[in-house]
Amino acid sequence: MYGAIEAGGTKFVCAIGNEDLKIIEQESFPTTDPEETMHLVEKFFKKHQNNIESIGVGSFGPIDVDKSSETYGYITSTPKKAWAYFDFVGSLKKRIDRPIAWTTDVNAAAYGEFINSYRQENLNVVYYTIGTGVGGGAIQNGEFIQGFSHPEMGHMKVVSHPEDSFKGNCPFHDNCLEGMAAGPAIEQRNGKKGQEIPVEDPFWDIEAYYIAQSAYNTTLMLSPDVIIFGGGVMKQEHLIEKVRKEFLNLINDYVKTPDIKEYIVTPKLGQNAGTVGCLALAKKLVTKK
Amino acid sequence: MYGAIEAGGTKFVCAIGNEDLKIIEQESFPTTDPEETMHLVEKFFKKHQNNIESIGVGSFGPIDVDKSSETYGYITSTPKKAWAYFDFVGSLKKRIDRPIAWTTDVNAAAYGEFINSYRQENLNVVYYTIGTGVGGGAIQNGEFIQGFSHPEMGHMKVVSHPEDSFKGNCPFHDNCLEGMAAGPAIEQRNGKKGQEIPVEDPFWDIEAYYIAQSAYNTTLMLSPDVIIFGGGVMKQEHLIEKVRKEFLNLINDYVKTPDIKEYIVTPKLGQNAGTVGCLALAKKLVTKK
Repeated sequence: MYGAIEAGGTKFVCAIGNEDLKIIEQESFPTTDPEETMHLVEKFFKKHQNNIESIGVGSFGPIDVDKSSETYGYITSTPKKAWAYFDFVGSLKKRIDRPIAWTTDVNAAAYGEFINSYRQENLNVVYYTIGTGVGGGAIQNGEFIQGFSHPEMGHMKVVSHPEDSFKGNCPFHDNCLEGMAAGPAIEQRNGKKGQEIPVEDPFWDIEAYYIAQSAYNTTLMLSPDVIIFGGGVMKQEHLIEKVRKEFLNLINDYVKTPDIKEYIVTPKLGQNAGTVGCLALAKKLVTKK
Repeated sequence: MYGAIEAGGTKFVCAIGNEDLKIIEQESFPTTDPEETMHLVEKFFKKHQNNIESIGVGSFGPIDVDKSSETYGYITSTPKKAWAYFDFVGSLKKRIDRPIAWTTDVNAAAYGEFINSYRQENLNVVYYTIGTGVGGGAIQNGEFIQGFSHPEMGHMKVVSHPEDSFKGNCPFHDNCLEGMAAGPAIEQRNGKKGQEIPVEDPFWDIEAYYIAQSAYNTTLMLSPDVIIFGGGVMKQEHLIEKVRKEFLNLINDYVKTPDIKEYIVTPKLGQNAGTVGCLALAKKLVTKK
């Protein structure tokens, strides 16, 4: 059996899964401070300790993924003060002494989708979560795309929609993708949450325009085989089709992408993409498969 | 010995190099129509035919790099009509029957820089050429980043500089990076070529702002170890420092990149990056090294 920890900024999901990455048991709790939260993690896994080979962690970030770094395994400069420079892997290892796979929450979700739907054809996938924040992860030949660190795709530059006067709310970049399209930007702009905005509201075309820009830039920079959009905002089921439409407008036939309905998609694993990805990374760590 | 063909839109560079990728002989001629140009290619290589193991080609594009495709080895939808859907690899193979490595001109230049300066540490590099057009190629773990096709980084979206009223001249996307920052955009905006614009002209801050946006988006999407800017426009030696400055402004300390002088750089091989890359790809094809 393998363990999975989806360490999100608002909630943690812990799970146990088998060799086939089937989730056997799952528990979630709110993210409070590190001591309390890690105690709940420990409690969950202690029950299964003798059956767990390894644990995969997909964490909110930014995190240190550089194995040669002294702060490998840390959450780094997060605005969540209690978690800034917290030694996640070190703390987990002290509590449950198992090999730990360590990556970002979006990389884990990307990996879950890859393993579940795209590994057989060895497709290159990019996964975005559009939720409280925006993040992205990319897989090429089964490996994460990274270099000096992991990507931070949510902060790419976007061009403002001509009918949008919102200035963006990212504290670092104002009008980056996250500053224009994440949940808080939707709420600040409309005075209500996304789920309260009717399907026919023209705002959704504006939202789709920003998300489509990330698909557009991703296409031109990575030319992947598939781009997946998950996260809370994408629960608006009408949105993916609007994103496809805006994307086709932007790309203007410059490159021939795969069939749009198979190229720009929502997660086939739904909310379980991250957990399955963590289980798969845990398994890969000890079996190389 | 290995052969190299840098197939550019305005000129072809053919070369022969040895096991150490040292250029032994090099010849260049203008790109005219495929028949005439390929004849000159054939003439160059016929002299050395018995000594050449394989040939590496870095071509202007878009090109078909999908080995399972019926048009693999073709230049595809280029606006250069005579070259559109020209079977480059097929034509070359008929003339010189050797194994052929086939990629884009920017991928070849990226590979040349990688082999020359970054392979030892296995760094992930992104290479942009800012010239008559703008293109980009990326290398992760020694392999090109690609999926359904090769990247077309020059066409990413950019945000207009507040003091720039130029609307962009890309026929597909108006104000993409290429439409705002390539040589023809510089000339159209200023009524003269880049090399005629004085170093102290504030236009260069605008140009640097666009190029810095590509470095910014590249950092957030790929998090590479190094970003290289080559091509004719970058021959303005003052420009790279301006790009670094604008990049640091944009990134606003959100991520900690490597030392800026080693992160945003010009090609160490200068104009030979593409040729050395083609030689290296030719060598890799037959020796796997």
